[in-house]
Amino acid sequence: MADQSFEEFHADRAALQARLQQTKHLGIKRVLTLDTAAYRDGALPGRTKEMLGLTASMVLRCDDCINYHLEQAVRAEWKQDEIEEAMNVALIVGGSIVIPHLRRAVRMLDELLALKKAGKLGVAVL
Amino acid sequence: MADQSFEEFHADRAALQARLQQTKHLGIKRVLTLDTAAYRDGALPGRTKEMLGLTASMVLRCDDCINYHLEQAVRAEWKQDEIEEAMNVALIVGGSIVIPHLRRAVRMLDELLALKKAGKLGVAVL
Amino acid sequence: MADQSFEEFHADRAALQARLQQTKHLGIKRVLTLDTAAYRDGALPGRTKEMLGLTASMVLRCDDCINYHLEQAVRAEWKQDEIEEAMNVALIVGGSIVIPHLRRAVRMLDELLALKKAGKLGVAVL
Amino acid sequence: MADQSFEEFHADRAALQARLQQTKHLGIKRVLTLDTAAYRDGALPGRTKEMLGLTASMVLRCDDCINYHLEQAVRAEWKQDEIEEAMNVALIVGGSIVIPHLRRAVRMLDELLALKKAGKLGVAVL
Amino acid sequence: MADQSFEEFHADRAALQARLQQTKHLGIKRVLTLDTAAYRDGALPGRTKEMLGLTASMVLRCDDCINYHLEQAVRAEWKQDEIEEAMNVALIVGGSIVIPHLRRAVRMLDELLALKKAGKLGVAVL
Amino acid sequence: MADQSFEEFHADRAALQARLQQTKHLGIKRVLTLDTAAYRDGALPGRTKEMLGLTASMVLRCDDCINYHLEQAVRAEWKQDEIEEAMNVALIVGGSIVIPHLRRAVRMLDELLALKKAGKLGVAVL
Repeated sequence: MADQSFEEFHADRAALQARLQQTKHLGIKRVLTLDTAAYRDGALPGRTKEMLGLTASMVLRCDDCINYHLEQAVRAEWKQDEIEEAMNVALIVGGSIVIPHLRRAVRMLDELLALKKAGKLGVAVL
Repeated sequence: MADQSFEEFHADRAALQARLQQTKHLGIKRVLTLDTAAYRDGALPGRTKEMLGLTASMVLRCDDCINYHLEQAVRAEWKQDEIEEAMNVALIVGGSIVIPHLRRAVRMLDELLALKKAGKLGVAVL
Repeated sequence: MADQSFEEFHADRAALQARLQQTKHLGIKRVLTLDTAAYRDGALPGRTKEMLGLTASMVLRCDDCINYHLEQAVRAEWKQDEIEEAMNVALIVGGSIVIPHLRRAVRMLDELLALKKAGKLGVAVL
Repeated sequence: MADQSFEEFHADRAALQARLQQTKHLGIKRVLTLDTAAYRDGALPGRTKEMLGLTASMVLRCDDCINYHLEQAVRAEWKQDEIEEAMNVALIVGGSIVIPHLRRAVRMLDELLALKKAGKLGVAVL
Repeated sequence: MADQSFEEFHADRAALQARLQQTKHLGIKRVLTLDTAAYRDGALPGRTKEMLGLTASMVLRCDDCINYHLEQAVRAEWKQDEIEEAMNVALIVGGSIVIPHLRRAVRMLDELLALKKAGKLGVAVL
Repeated sequence: MADQSFEEFHADRAALQARLQQTKHLGIKRVLTLDTAAYRDGALPGRTKEMLGLTASMVLRCDDCINYHLEQAVRAEWKQDEIEEAMNVALIVGGSIVIPHLRRAVRMLDELLALKKAGKLGVAVL
C-alpha cells in the first residue's frame, strides 16, 4: 500500500466514520461508544491508554488504527522518543511482519509532529 | 487504505482472478474449486453460508473477501438490517480493530444495495 | 492440547466466568453484556447468529469459543450435518491451521449431541 | 485449556526457558536478548512498557505471554484497577475472542496479588 | 499450556484424526486430502515443503501443527541446526509472541531427535 | 487494494525504509539488523530461507513482505513452478483468506520474472 498523507487519511476516515455513526444497529452504536470510552481518563490516564491502543494496533497490523492512535498520542503531548519506545515493544512482540506498518507509522509520525509544531493539527474526529 | 468503488473493486478482482485461474499448479486450482463449492446449497443454503463467509472475512479483516461476500449477500436477497446483524457479530467477536473494515463495508453495502435497486449489479465473477 | 470433556470445559468456564462477572471495571462489564446481546433474536434469529459466532471462532482458532458456540448450536436444534457445513466454511476460509481445532470440535460435537439425545445437556451458563 | 496456578506456570516456563537459552543458534539468542532489553527503562519507564506488553499479549491471545507480563506488572507495583484498565483496552481492541484469555488472566492476577501481599512472589525468571 | 511428550501428542492426535476422517462432509474430506498432497514431492521436494509448513505453523502459533511438522522434518533427515534455522526465520517474522511455542518446540525436537537416534520414532500417522 | 507495479512498490519501500533506518531507537535498529541476518547463508542456504520467509509472509497476509520475498526469490534463481509450490503450501495452511494476496502475488511474480529475463531487475534494496 502506498502511504497516505495525514490530511488524506483524516478526511477519508471522517467521511466513513460519519456514515458508520448513522447506522441503525444498536449493537454497533454501543461498540462505538464503548471504544471511545476506553481511552478516557480512568484508573490509568487517557494518554497512557492511547499508547496501549497504539501498541495493540501495531501488533495487529491495522494502519488506520495506528494512524488514529499516533494522532491521539501527538495531541496528548507524547514525544517522538517515547512513541518510538511503544513502537519498539510492538516490533519486538509482533516481529518483522510489523515492519511495513512501522515504516508507514514513522513517516506519519514525522508529519504529525511537524503539524503539531506548526499549530496545524486541527480538531480531532472521534 | 482509501476506499474503492464497487466497480473498481470488481474490475481489479476479475482481472487478477482470471490470471490466477490460469495457474498450472494443480493444488492451487483445487483449492479454488473447493472454495467455490463451499458456498453452494448443501445441508445449509448457500445464502446462509455467504453470511458465514462474510463474518469470517470481517474477523480476519480482509477487505477483498468482505467485498466479495457483501456482493454475494446482496445478490442472495439478504436485507441491510440482516447483513448489519452479521457485521455486528463480527464486530463483537473481532473487536474495534474490525472498525476500519466495517466503515468501508458499510459504504460498500450502500453502493451494492443502490446498484441492486437500480438493476445494475451485473453478473457475478467467481 | 489434550482434549477436554464437555463437563470439564463447562465447569472450568463457569467458575472463571463467575469470577470475571464480579469485575469492578465498568467497561469490561459492558462488553460482556454486549457480547451476550449480540446472539439474541433480532433482524437475524439468535440461532443463525450462533452459527456466525461458531464460524468466527473457528477461523480465529479459539477452542473455548468454539465449544461455547457448539453447545449453543446444539441447544438451538441445529443438526450435525448443518453444523459441519459451518465448520467446512471455517476450514475453507481459515485453512489447515484450523484442523487441530476442527478435530477437537468434531469430538466435542459428538459428545454434545449424545448428551442432547439423552436429555443430559443441563442448563446453559452465559 | 484448564487454567494453571502461577506456581505451575512459573516452573514449566523456567524449565523450558532454561533449555531454550542453551540454543546454539546465534539469531535466536539475540532475539531473546532484544526481547528482554525492550522492557528496560528507556524513554518510557520499564513498568509502562510491561503494560504495553500485557496489552499486546492479550490482543494476540497468548496465555504464557499474558501470565509473564501480569507477573511483571504486579512486581512493578501496578494496582489491580490499573491493570484492569489495560485489560479493558485489550478487550475493546481485540473483541470477545479475548474473553477466554481475560477470564484466565483475572484469576491469575488474583493469585499474583495475593502472593505479592503475602510476600511470596519469589524471584522473577527472565 | 504444560508441554506434552511426543507419545502423548501422537496418541491424542491419532485418535482425533481417525474420528475426523470418518466425517461424512465431502468438503472437509477433500481439504484433508489436499493438505496431505501439499507436502508430497513436486517442483519442490516434500522435505523442503515440511520446512515451509513448520515455519508457517510457528508464525501462526499452532502447537499441534508445529509438532506434526517437526516430526515430519526429523523423519525427513533434517538436522537440528537446519531446523533451528527455520525456527529462527519464524521467530524473526513472528516476533516474541512466538517464543512460548518455540520453547515447547525446542523441547519436542530434543525428544524427536532422541527417538530417531534410538530407532523408536515408529510409524507416522497422517 | 488495487495492485501496484514492482517499480512503484520498490520505490515506495526504498523511501520509507531509508527513513526508518535513520531511527535513533537502538532496539528498532537492532531488529532491522537481525531481520537482514536471518536470510543470510547459514545451516540452511539463504535462498531456502527466502522461501520460508515468503510462506510465512503469505500466511500472515502481508503484501509488502510477500513482494519483498518474491523479489529475493527471483533474484536467487528460484523458478516459477518452485515458487508456486511455496505459495500452495501457504494457501493450504492459511486458507482462502490468503487468495486476495495470492492473486496479487501471482501477478507480481509474472512481472518480476519478466524483468529478470530482460535483465532489468536492478539492484536490491534491503
